[in-house]
Amino acid sequence: MTRFECDYTQGAHPRIMQRLLETNLEQTSGYGTDEYCERARGLIRQACGAERADVHFLVGGTQTNTTVIAALLRPHQGVLSADTGHIAGHETGAIESTGHKVLALPNTDGKITAEQVREAYESHWNDAANEHTVQPGMVYISQSTENGTVYSLAELEALSEVCRECALPLFVDGARLGYALAAEGSDVTLADLARLTDVFYIGGTKLGALMGEAVVIMNEPLKRDFRYLIKQRGGLLAKGRLLGIQFETLFEDGLYFEISQNAITLAMKMRRGLENLGLGFLHNSPTNQQFPILPNTLIERLREKHTFSTWAKIDANSTAVRFCTSWGTTDAEVDELLEDIAAMMPTEDRQAVL
Amino acid sequence: MTRFECDYTQGAHPRIMQRLLETNLEQTSGYGTDEYCERARGLIRQACGAERADVHFLVGGTQTNTTVIAALLRPHQGVLSADTGHIAGHETGAIESTGHKVLALPNTDGKITAEQVREAYESHWNDAANEHTVQPGMVYISQSTENGTVYSLAELEALSEVCRECALPLFVDGARLGYALAAEGSDVTLADLARLTDVFYIGGTKLGALMGEAVVIMNEPLKRDFRYLIKQRGGLLAKGRLLGIQFETLFEDGLYFEISQNAITLAMKMRRGLENLGLGFLHNSPTNQQFPILPNTLIERLREKHTFSTWAKIDANSTAVRFCTSWGTTDAEVDELLEDIAAMMPTEDRQAVL
Amino acid sequence: MTRFECDYTQGAHPRIMQRLLETNLEQTSGYGTDEYCERARGLIRQACGAERADVHFLVGGTQTNTTVIAALLRPHQGVLSADTGHIAGHETGAIESTGHKVLALPNTDGKITAEQVREAYESHWNDAANEHTVQPGMVYISQSTENGTVYSLAELEALSEVCRECALPLFVDGARLGYALAAEGSDVTLADLARLTDVFYIGGTKLGALMGEAVVIMNEPLKRDFRYLIKQRGGLLAKGRLLGIQFETLFEDGLYFEISQNAITLAMKMRRGLENLGLGFLHNSPTNQQFPILPNTLIERLREKHTFSTWAKIDANSTAVRFCTSWGTTDAEVDELLEDIAAMMPTEDRQAVL
Amino acid sequence: MTRFECDYTQGAHPRIMQRLLETNLEQTSGYGTDEYCERARGLIRQACGAERADVHFLVGGTQTNTTVIAALLRPHQGVLSADTGHIAGHETGAIESTGHKVLALPNTDGKITAEQVREAYESHWNDAANEHTVQPGMVYISQSTENGTVYSLAELEALSEVCRECALPLFVDGARLGYALAAEGSDVTLADLARLTDVFYIGGTKLGALMGEAVVIMNEPLKRDFRYLIKQRGGLLAKGRLLGIQFETLFEDGLYFEISQNAITLAMKMRRGLENLGLGFLHNSPTNQQFPILPNTLIERLREKHTFSTWAKIDANSTAVRFCTSWGTTDAEVDELLEDIAAMMPTEDRQAVL
Repeated sequence: MTRFECDYTQGAHPRIMQRLLETNLEQTSGYGTDEYCERARGLIRQACGAERADVHFLVGGTQTNTTVIAALLRPHQGVLSADTGHIAGHETGAIESTGHKVLALPNTDGKITAEQVREAYESHWNDAANEHTVQPGMVYISQSTENGTVYSLAELEALSEVCRECALPLFVDGARLGYALAAEGSDVTLADLARLTDVFYIGGTKLGALMGEAVVIMNEPLKRDFRYLIKQRGGLLAKGRLLGIQFETLFEDGLYFEISQNAITLAMKMRRGLENLGLGFLHNSPTNQQFPILPNTLIERLREKHTFSTWAKIDANSTAVRFCTSWGTTDAEVDELLEDIAAMMPTEDRQAVL
Repeated sequence: MTRFECDYTQGAHPRIMQRLLETNLEQTSGYGTDEYCERARGLIRQACGAERADVHFLVGGTQTNTTVIAALLRPHQGVLSADTGHIAGHETGAIESTGHKVLALPNTDGKITAEQVREAYESHWNDAANEHTVQPGMVYISQSTENGTVYSLAELEALSEVCRECALPLFVDGARLGYALAAEGSDVTLADLARLTDVFYIGGTKLGALMGEAVVIMNEPLKRDFRYLIKQRGGLLAKGRLLGIQFETLFEDGLYFEISQNAITLAMKMRRGLENLGLGFLHNSPTNQQFPILPNTLIERLREKHTFSTWAKIDANSTAVRFCTSWGTTDAEVDELLEDIAAMMPTEDRQAVL
Repeated sequence: MTRFECDYTQGAHPRIMQRLLETNLEQTSGYGTDEYCERARGLIRQACGAERADVHFLVGGTQTNTTVIAALLRPHQGVLSADTGHIAGHETGAIESTGHKVLALPNTDGKITAEQVREAYESHWNDAANEHTVQPGMVYISQSTENGTVYSLAELEALSEVCRECALPLFVDGARLGYALAAEGSDVTLADLARLTDVFYIGGTKLGALMGEAVVIMNEPLKRDFRYLIKQRGGLLAKGRLLGIQFETLFEDGLYFEISQNAITLAMKMRRGLENLGLGFLHNSPTNQQFPILPNTLIERLREKHTFSTWAKIDANSTAVRFCTSWGTTDAEVDELLEDIAAMMPTEDRQAVL
Repeated sequence: MTRFECDYTQGAHPRIMQRLLETNLEQTSGYGTDEYCERARGLIRQACGAERADVHFLVGGTQTNTTVIAALLRPHQGVLSADTGHIAGHETGAIESTGHKVLALPNTDGKITAEQVREAYESHWNDAANEHTVQPGMVYISQSTENGTVYSLAELEALSEVCRECALPLFVDGARLGYALAAEGSDVTLADLARLTDVFYIGGTKLGALMGEAVVIMNEPLKRDFRYLIKQRGGLLAKGRLLGIQFETLFEDGLYFEISQNAITLAMKMRRGLENLGLGFLHNSPTNQQFPILPNTLIERLREKHTFSTWAKIDANSTAVRFCTSWGTTDAEVDELLEDIAAMMPTEDRQAVL
């Protein structure tokens, strides 16, 4: 059984495991005050070209989204997000549990635009009864998005400009940031994110770490007391160095970028293979998530050898599914998947291709 | 530098690291639905003699306390706790952040009594204006406590009886449960906890795991939808198997109890050694936390070789400190600490001993 | 200037003022424990044919919605509501401020259907990853709705049936309940609401009282400790008798129904008058809110003599507005409004009518 | 039966009722945007000598405390308060329901000192592990306090100075502010409060109004968006003018001060009368709350004619009770109370006096 259902099916990159093993019996202080965390912070600042950034390590994505958003908003404010945003639909109301509404905007390819943000802002402030509605207080986007798409540099710059004009902090959920940076055609760098956003995070859980998300804070007021907020939301890992060691390993010689590239290379190989079989896609994704539309009969048989997620019903006979590659996916696994799909294609479909 | 400041200065027990390494590249489903977690749950149920228990794995203690307490209470209810309880003073108001007041009761040796719980309950219900006050909705205790003390079986039984009479669920914070079970003179077992409480947890972070707390739920209504609550509070680890593998290792052949015993044996050795030097103690602890009272002059010099926490000012010349042993502490480390203290004792104190 | 912008522009019905004046210097106990509240509760139970109902008096609608919803839900649950529901858009995120998401369903004429509720329920429970999403925990509807429409008895019965099958408590926001009961063609009674819902409220603020909403609770678990929740949410009026006296006056001899009828009679007169002028309507409302579509040029001139709300832009030249009648609206005021509109109609439109 | 159990047993001062009656059928805009509110705001600014103050009207005290405190704090901060503070014990955890801990300080005569505030502040910031504890974010005091005592100008100035040095906003709960201003020996004015605090409120509910508290905001950041917060917490009264009319009446020609004085004059008469009967007091209160210690046998008999609250058990035979005078108390009522107590005094006690 090969697992393509998500990008967190395996442990950590072997070099990370090696480092954890080497340092295992060392004694360090807790809660991220150790030297490994300190070095990892430095490496991340360097990778972002942002010496003045504050860097914090949290354990998981929901926790990170909740902590950052609750830290930025006043009680009557909400967070603008694509209606497909992770915080809007897949975190069991974690944002609402901190008192804040997710203000969902219709997405295009999983993304929202600078124009939508401006319109939401103006629509609120032009409403004579705005006190009776939730005030937009910040903007949340994901890079890459739930649809596997990425914001281009031009899109990010436009969002950043509107956000600054409207005094809306811009927060980028980077649970899959590595894959976005490595995406086919991507023109966005870590330095761009540091320059254009108020806060973003560099996902580790889905990119070679056992767990961990590195939050990079550029916004000055948000820096204040941020560790209190991590602690209050349950995100201050006692053995904080575990996160430091992992991010140090990922950033000391480019491992993060290298393993991200592996996932993209294999995702593009998968994509082309599926296209060659004549299959269409639900979303046009240049990252590690691919959403091909498969015949239902094939899906049933494919499940015997591979795991994946069903994503959306297309019509009576076909369904979009999601395959994820990851830092750990191998060439052989993708080959096998493609071969199995080719072999299982219904005759009429196969003929259509031929 | 030897670290005695807490019991989470090192990584994980080598057997756990070994298991994590062996399984590292396996692919499993996420969020604790894998077979390692399933086996770990079975082993814990068995260790507790509680086949009907639900077992969940969370990452850290604050997260676990918050999730359990918010799951048990209605909005107008609070949680009874010793004023020294971890939730009362060391979690940055995490419980309050979920809307609930911590109803602090004066502690004796870090503990509260069945009588105090009954009195708090009756005092509330006999108050004609009780609707204007927070209703006691559950009881929180720690085993071992912040003072290093443990509840005896008789004390736990009395608490349990009152809690059941008053319909107040009883929750035991077991961040250091292993050390409590192994404590000198302890007569409480895991089966007792399963029998006498509504929910408790078995700490992993402080007992040989990289991180992780195993929540054991006996209370039927609390079982319902508990995974939603873990997810909402940010505690549902994506690579959940990491917790399952660790608890499986800890419970498959008694490792948890064995390493807990190591900490207690060395703590008792430390205690006797300090007593022999004529030193007194702030708390009379039979567990891995020891609170000797040291001359201030000695404390300054001792810091050059060892780390530890200052706990309470005793008088102008002396201060109580805390030394923690752990699963990873060695005999040699305790010997060295005792020798250093002996060597650094001010002459007059040393003579008083002699 | 005559005000049609809402149904709370005036003080209270003169008989209420008279009763407040007569009782003004009496001394009673506070927080709703007085005899006026007790009698009002009895009258409301009688009017609802619901001897086992619990009745509580709160001050305002947002407060009431928040208190009831937060009392019914567990932390991971949300409330199903029409996307036009008052809680979804006009209460500054008050529901979210208590930790719960409003799960918005597309409305038809301001209403949701039993089928939509069933589908939302099944869609949640059939989702293998439902723990990652907010669980539907109850249903909120308004009678009358934000569009001025009312649920028929058949619609309510269908909703009630689905809610009971799905164990979703049904809550009816009755801020304008009197107007709904008196609506042209309405076949729903207070007894129906008591029979079919778990909890609803009888609005006073918009129906002749200075302020006040009477919550009628049928759901047994919700009855428990409800006064604590009112107090915690700031809704327990110190001089609670003010609410009791007002509801006693409204319900002792049918005043509530009588003044509701006044608003409906005048709304229907207004409606026919506007129809006779050839005007169309945004919503087809049988209650006290009317939403005619007016030429923009007329709107500007009409504002010099009357207040009203603009509701929706229809096209470049016309806009839907809202006129509200109320318990206090007079026949002369409606006549004057109609005459003014007729006189201000652009020539071409007037000719079109003639 | 004469009621001395609290200061909200009656409706409103007759002049207020008269004004409400006169304006009853006028039509105004809602939510406090009417001219009565505007005039009332002006009168209050004038009375406070604070032209730059923002003034808002809310319905009740718990609501006001919750709204102000939640508006001022960030999520990880708590509010310093006397352990006897209303928010600490009598609001069903309303503050905690917004996510914030009440940081209780031991009271002296119901008050806290500037020194205590400084110590709490320094103790927090000198704690190396302060991120694990709730950060003091503001200071809450009541004028008058739950014990009926008042802060002197010197005490307030000292508190204000410390608060400004520590950047802790100072909030004064003035539910009984009128009685504090009129207290025997009080040297504090409204202008002092405006000068020395960040925000305070002028209670109406307990001082002649049907309901209503006027919040006076001096702190610039707190002014921003405050109406959103009132709405979100359910405190934005639809018929807002009811509050405006009442406060206009109270402040247009000194009625507020006059009726406050009535309560104090009668409280002092009561106090001297009770002293003359040889009775002692639990608290030494110069305001409208008096806490005499009565023989238990007398208490039972007194209840047949008067209502009052039992406050604290003193010994086996005697109990402290609370009598409140108010704006509406009459000379005859106090005379009757004193006569009844004198007549009911046990013979031995009466002889002791003679």
